[in-house]
Amino acid sequence: MNNEPMKNRSAEFSCPIPITDYKNILLAHGGGGKLTHQLIQKMLLPQFRSKLLEPLHDGAIFSINGSRLAFSTDSYVVNPIFFPGGDIGELAVNGTVNDLAMCGAQPLYLSVGFIIEEGLPMEDLWRVVLSMEKAATVAGVELVTGDTKVVDRGKGDKIFINTSGIGIINEGIEINPRNASVGDKILINGAIAQHGIAIMSVREGLEFETQIESDTAPLHGLVQAMFDVSKKIHVLRDPTRGGVASALNEIAENSRVGIVLDEGKISLTEEVRGACEILGLDPLYVANEGKLLAFVVPDEAEKILSAMKNHPLGKDSAIIGEVVNDYPGTVVMKSKIGGSRVVDMLSGEQLPRIC
Amino acid sequence: MNNEPMKNRSAEFSCPIPITDYKNILLAHGGGGKLTHQLIQKMLLPQFRSKLLEPLHDGAIFSINGSRLAFSTDSYVVNPIFFPGGDIGELAVNGTVNDLAMCGAQPLYLSVGFIIEEGLPMEDLWRVVLSMEKAATVAGVELVTGDTKVVDRGKGDKIFINTSGIGIINEGIEINPRNASVGDKILINGAIAQHGIAIMSVREGLEFETQIESDTAPLHGLVQAMFDVSKKIHVLRDPTRGGVASALNEIAENSRVGIVLDEGKISLTEEVRGACEILGLDPLYVANEGKLLAFVVPDEAEKILSAMKNHPLGKDSAIIGEVVNDYPGTVVMKSKIGGSRVVDMLSGEQLPRIC
Repeated sequence: MNNEPMKNRSAEFSCPIPITDYKNILLAHGGGGKLTHQLIQKMLLPQFRSKLLEPLHDGAIFSINGSRLAFSTDSYVVNPIFFPGGDIGELAVNGTVNDLAMCGAQPLYLSVGFIIEEGLPMEDLWRVVLSMEKAATVAGVELVTGDTKVVDRGKGDKIFINTSGIGIINEGIEINPRNASVGDKILINGAIAQHGIAIMSVREGLEFETQIESDTAPLHGLVQAMFDVSKKIHVLRDPTRGGVASALNEIAENSRVGIVLDEGKISLTEEVRGACEILGLDPLYVANEGKLLAFVVPDEAEKILSAMKNHPLGKDSAIIGEVVNDYPGTVVMKSKIGGSRVVDMLSGEQLPRIC
Repeated sequence: MNNEPMKNRSAEFSCPIPITDYKNILLAHGGGGKLTHQLIQKMLLPQFRSKLLEPLHDGAIFSINGSRLAFSTDSYVVNPIFFPGGDIGELAVNGTVNDLAMCGAQPLYLSVGFIIEEGLPMEDLWRVVLSMEKAATVAGVELVTGDTKVVDRGKGDKIFINTSGIGIINEGIEINPRNASVGDKILINGAIAQHGIAIMSVREGLEFETQIESDTAPLHGLVQAMFDVSKKIHVLRDPTRGGVASALNEIAENSRVGIVLDEGKISLTEEVRGACEILGLDPLYVANEGKLLAFVVPDEAEKILSAMKNHPLGKDSAIIGEVVNDYPGTVVMKSKIGGSRVVDMLSGEQLPRIC
């Protein structure tokens, strides 16, 4: 007897996600919450174990001949593909631009991979293509390479788009989700939950006096405006799938710090608040596509806030919380009336296919 | 009256693919043949009109701080996801490694984007992840960043994978599909049509004495062995979707040259020849995933051929044709018995979802 046969067969038997718990992939594995986190932490990261992946950024950072580059990828499967305030094409450009911006990078080049379901109206593809071109022009990035695949009817859903992007990180910028430090102030550039509610309103057929539109926007210009006044930004994160709550939980875990949020400082439009009540959704868990969270050195917070407020995408910026020494790995919300509650990571599949 | 309203509405009405011909996307738009070509030429290239896209490479080439980089993307939708000789994970790594190699680049970093259908057995995902890790190790590339999306049951097909890649191009290398020149010899590294036939055999339930396996392999080592003996390589191309015929037609068109192939020099295994006959397929149009076509300066052809034959992936390399001054844009096959015929680009949907 020796261990070789067992060793050789181990790959088959050692799937790190307990089969008794999850024999099959669930929608929630793509929801950006606990199950997505488990899948990445237990299955993907240990296998793709590159050091570059470790910081759990929105992208990888590496140097080529002395240039620090960021590289990011995202697939967009949003349903419906056209929604108030945007469409899948615009989202695909802005989303990857934002992932690069959250690495502290200036986005330069994007790739585009289409997976199209047979039968998609040619005019719909054309609208998406035009929208991507426009978004790229607005963001100042170039769509430089692409690929198109078609799958049979019923084996896809209209169109899925992958974009990957390359950006360059300037001297003196060190953004890392492990860098949140006790005392850091947490800033956000406006009202939350707009994108997710815009999508859900369409799906549920809700109508409001004012239509709720996605906040999709490229954020690298705002980030640049912030860097222009201070490089003392520790963490940047766009709270997309899983919302502000999931993004902050990930950062609290990665940096091993506690986070305290001030409920009174987190803003919502009246329409979004109303829709959340009707739909039974907690806005803290609802996706954003034009918002960023910034963890900044306390002394620089006001200066950075002021720079954000002067930018078109940051007029309603606010300091919504801070990093504390207590309860590392946990996010706590202080309510307007003085109580406090733990804000956990999203569990389950609150909003499938939101981006 | 002025023209503004018409101008503003023009985007809606100017879809460049004639609606009367193709109102909806067909499978053939993803087949790698004429309709794919039309879609790219008429709709995508004019919109994403970056100069970097123009050379119609397998990837984009640009410089960042003096380093010449290649950037490529590909989505893999192969059905079935496990097939003789490989699986979708291995294909996704090798395919993008090869796209970079065909730009003359040394592949460095890959991104991975999963689009998973709800209900995929967790063990299947695990097998794919292990396969990708192994393929990356063999190819010497790092999987540095990723994304996972899940779509509802019936809105995807098990798993689709996008990989994008970054590579670096060394000094003195100038590969461009427009560079094929009269007199160039055309080399290939072995027998054709294995990947496509491996997939089709499984789909059609064909059985042979010897199982036909996909030729999926990373080709950058072979390319490096070729560069080691000569930099006078004008064009490199991996003949995947649409096969050797479609790849050569694209090059003939891009370089505005004629291509003459010598049928007697193009090799097929007996099993693949038999399968092609049973399936009614012309092997020139069947996908390869471990083959490359090289257009090289005639004086260097024997030296490069010899280097290829000394590489494990090039033992059966051969010179299969040359570039001529006559009939620019056209590929002509000289048969073993002396006749000749035009080899057109693939039209229609011979082999959907082959990669």
